[in-house]
Amino acid sequence: MNTVHVETPGGAYPIHIGAGRLGLLAQSIPADATAVALVTNPTVGGLYAAGVEKTLAEAGHRVLRIDLPDGEEHKDWQTLNLIFDALLQNRFDRKAVLVALGGGVIGDMVGFAAACYMRGVRFVQVPTTLLAQVDSSVGGKTAVNHPLGKNMIGAFYQPDAVEIDVDVLKTLPQREIAAGLAEVIKYGMIIDAPFFDWCEQNVDALRALEHNAITYAIRRSCELKAYVVSQDERESGLRAILNFGHTFGHAIEAGLGYGQWLHGEAVGCGMIQAAELSAAVLGLPRGSVERIRSLVRAIGCPDAPPDLGVERWLDLMQVDKKTEGGQLRFVLLPEIGRAVCQPAPDEAVREVLQRTVSA
Amino acid sequence: MNTVHVETPGGAYPIHIGAGRLGLLAQSIPADATAVALVTNPTVGGLYAAGVEKTLAEAGHRVLRIDLPDGEEHKDWQTLNLIFDALLQNRFDRKAVLVALGGGVIGDMVGFAAACYMRGVRFVQVPTTLLAQVDSSVGGKTAVNHPLGKNMIGAFYQPDAVEIDVDVLKTLPQREIAAGLAEVIKYGMIIDAPFFDWCEQNVDALRALEHNAITYAIRRSCELKAYVVSQDERESGLRAILNFGHTFGHAIEAGLGYGQWLHGEAVGCGMIQAAELSAAVLGLPRGSVERIRSLVRAIGCPDAPPDLGVERWLDLMQVDKKTEGGQLRFVLLPEIGRAVCQPAPDEAVREVLQRTVSA
Repeated sequence: MNTVHVETPGGAYPIHIGAGRLGLLAQSIPADATAVALVTNPTVGGLYAAGVEKTLAEAGHRVLRIDLPDGEEHKDWQTLNLIFDALLQNRFDRKAVLVALGGGVIGDMVGFAAACYMRGVRFVQVPTTLLAQVDSSVGGKTAVNHPLGKNMIGAFYQPDAVEIDVDVLKTLPQREIAAGLAEVIKYGMIIDAPFFDWCEQNVDALRALEHNAITYAIRRSCELKAYVVSQDERESGLRAILNFGHTFGHAIEAGLGYGQWLHGEAVGCGMIQAAELSAAVLGLPRGSVERIRSLVRAIGCPDAPPDLGVERWLDLMQVDKKTEGGQLRFVLLPEIGRAVCQPAPDEAVREVLQRTVSA
Repeated sequence: MNTVHVETPGGAYPIHIGAGRLGLLAQSIPADATAVALVTNPTVGGLYAAGVEKTLAEAGHRVLRIDLPDGEEHKDWQTLNLIFDALLQNRFDRKAVLVALGGGVIGDMVGFAAACYMRGVRFVQVPTTLLAQVDSSVGGKTAVNHPLGKNMIGAFYQPDAVEIDVDVLKTLPQREIAAGLAEVIKYGMIIDAPFFDWCEQNVDALRALEHNAITYAIRRSCELKAYVVSQDERESGLRAILNFGHTFGHAIEAGLGYGQWLHGEAVGCGMIQAAELSAAVLGLPRGSVERIRSLVRAIGCPDAPPDLGVERWLDLMQVDKKTEGGQLRFVLLPEIGRAVCQPAPDEAVREVLQRTVSA
């Protein structure tokens, strides 16, 4: 078992990474919990909820299972309210603990529910997708979507613990593995060039979920994200670099309708566009752009962005929350392993959109 | 002008109290605000919004006015969403500032909207009722109601500043003055016996809104609440004493339907019940109970709780978030000026309910 320690002004907590962690979940539930709500979806719940319920009940906890409908299109206030309804109907008090068993959608919603229920209760993240394990379960960002924008309503709220069981990846569709690897390779691009090299060299082992390779990739990703988040919990500075590829990626998701592309797929493709923009604005070498494009392809993500029309692209990126005072800001790479956040000239953005979208 | 400084782990901010503060509001808007949303309701907005908009516009701010429907029955997620819709439609970014111009309902909703919009933007409280001036604008509690309980969904989130203009009280109905004075006298009961004495002696001047009396009462109330909140931002200990009368009061509001009694009226009546329970459990002298009853009457609040039936009363108090592990806890007074938080025996609670409700 590997443990990564995350420290932020909003709280410190451990991330446990290993095989068989689901069976040890009770260790991460605070002893004074008055009840535990196990929030999941039918897909993940069908595979793992019964075992987790049994583990928690054997440890003496009163457990309520709450199933939410599956998918990004349900990441909204209406679904969030299903959690509040169940907690209030079952008289969960301020010392209850929520457990998020599922992917990023479940994690974001349960985290936000924990942030808001009675103005804040404790929660434990049990991410079951690779994407959630290396990204959304670290750093305390929680949210739901609004019809006018993704993750527009949310909170910074830290979990009590994160439990990452690498065994659950075996039941994950290949497409979701690829989407998760997109975030893994992102850390190499923005902050750790040797890790980028390592990912290039181990891409086949990663896609095959070879135990040592995938465990190291998760641990290194969590360490890198934890480092960034500890420097900047509320995204006023350094943390923005984690959004590399996301301004383009969010536009893909919003433009096609949430749920068409997986979030990681959209980010993977968006990183190629952001690399192209980095070449145009900061002179990122063409060879580096092509290495990024090749690695995105090699992990199994799509590399051709959808043709939404340039004006629509710009419009979708405007509403993204990384704009300030109306000026479009991007995370760009001067070189692989280093990222900066800055505005980009409109014509450069248009040129990249025209070129990548028609490619 | 008087200033009270509030310090909490979540942030420090000033409360400015005086005549004509509305006209000086621009002083409290951060200089780097990209836009200002002035959120109000038709009643308060009709009286004061045009002037405030003019003041802010003259200071160079882009101002968007958002009117919410009036009343506690609209303090829900649907109404909150009207704020999010307007902010997103008008492309408000993370450096926008929200201004809450209204009573406690507006303050709680705008504060919660500020806590959640893009995971947190800045806001300024401009409370226009006496109740909001002495209570909900101090301490960072924000929330909306859920059909199963009041203030169940919310956040601890501190404003950047609070602006209290005593002039606006002149347009307030007498019933709302009484409801606000209920919270004022509460501070005397729980933490400041000399202030309780002062309120008894100045009750006529307070009801008549005599300038020096009402300004001192607001300032002293804010100081006392700020002291309590600074000791305990997240209500794990001392802060609970601020809920004196609230467990009974919330049951009145929920039992009759929100909006039938004003919150302050329900708390005023609830404080008499809590005083009776204090006599039964802690031996608060009968003379003190009668002083509390007399002062609640003298400020103009109802002193007879509605007959909801004892079982319904107990049920309504159970769902209140001050329960822990199913045990009913109350804020009780060993003497006027000192409060403790502790469980009360069921039979004592029943006896008080039977006696006060049939009175």
